[in-house]
Amino acid sequence: MKISDLSRLSGTPVGTIKYYLREGLLPPGRPLGATLTLYGDEHVQRLRLIRALTARGGLSIAATRDVLTAIDEPLDPLATLGVVHYALPTPVDAAETDAVDEQAPRVDELVRAMGWDVSPDSPHRRALAASLMDLSRLGVEYGTGDLLPYAELAAAAAKLDVDRLEELDDAEDRLKLAEHAAVVVLLLEPVLALLRRMAQENETRRRAAWARTPENP
Amino acid sequence: MKISDLSRLSGTPVGTIKYYLREGLLPPGRPLGATLTLYGDEHVQRLRLIRALTARGGLSIAATRDVLTAIDEPLDPLATLGVVHYALPTPVDAAETDAVDEQAPRVDELVRAMGWDVSPDSPHRRALAASLMDLSRLGVEYGTGDLLPYAELAAAAAKLDVDRLEELDDAEDRLKLAEHAAVVVLLLEPVLALLRRMAQENETRRRAAWARTPENP
Repeated sequence: MKISDLSRLSGTPVGTIKYYLREGLLPPGRPLGATLTLYGDEHVQRLRLIRALTARGGLSIAATRDVLTAIDEPLDPLATLGVVHYALPTPVDAAETDAVDEQAPRVDELVRAMGWDVSPDSPHRRALAASLMDLSRLGVEYGTGDLLPYAELAAAAAKLDVDRLEELDDAEDRLKLAEHAAVVVLLLEPVLALLRRMAQENETRRRAAWARTPENP
Repeated sequence: MKISDLSRLSGTPVGTIKYYLREGLLPPGRPLGATLTLYGDEHVQRLRLIRALTARGGLSIAATRDVLTAIDEPLDPLATLGVVHYALPTPVDAAETDAVDEQAPRVDELVRAMGWDVSPDSPHRRALAASLMDLSRLGVEYGTGDLLPYAELAAAAAKLDVDRLEELDDAEDRLKLAEHAAVVVLLLEPVLALLRRMAQENETRRRAAWARTPENP
């Protein structure tokens, strides 16, 4: 299809498609003569993935390119999950390095208490330390004992995630499988956050209603 | 303290402080003469909260102002949680309205299956429908049956969240309580996402190791 059809089918403006081509997010089309380039269904699918990662996943163009590069390597879904993890942006302000380092032992303690096998180089360890530092500075302390029940819930969610990936493992299109891995990791994050917000609303309303019953005036 | 001391103590450049003052994110200081304005500890705390909401929570300046406005209303923590929820950005592309509407019944079905009391006007219903639309377009279908176990985990997390807020309810500084509510809602989201990523890494490594044992070559 021509770039105008690709634009229409994917709902992406032609200028944006050209930008993604220049930035290497989208593989080049097949040139047909000097002025015509043809694109395929894989370009439509890739544009939807880029849109999902940037608009819904909140990734920058650079981070999106890292994730797409990881996806293009022909790995199995579980290995891809690791590569996607390490491509994700986990910004830690360089000026804050010392303060973040102070929180690192709390993260180590949590990982040990959970018996988790997580690389010492995992960027998520530092990102978690940075988040705990923010909370601590705002006077909100979450110790290992407070975090453990959340970690148990995260472990249960991760089992569901990896079950889903393993179910996909016998499919044939490994690139599509790798895309699924990225989607399950990244796009389920907002889904889970939204479910928690709705559950918080329910929990708050339920307790407020209970507090208002005649037995509890 | 002078603005220079506020800058040093909070680690925020003077220009950024002035920007926050202009944008109404930071309450004005106390003028002392024509050229001197004094700031207090509440400004330090507020700057840390702004930084945490923007840098770690990923909120825009406009959304941060909405959340801070909600916090400044003297409500109880549970009510504040609701106000914070509704101030959060849940962008749904106007061009996508019809496609999002198509997913709304799936969200309704999930809320009904969980027996949740969630307002029909909750912005998180539409945001969830938009996320499900993204997944569906990428060929990743999560039906009600797939989402229910995640919703159960979200409900358990929300119980922990609201327990924590209720524990704070007997404290005296209601503004500080309201800040805690915003922090627990917003800043725990990256913490939970990071715990899930670490748990995914652990789960993947554990299964890969299991698959490599001599009994399962």
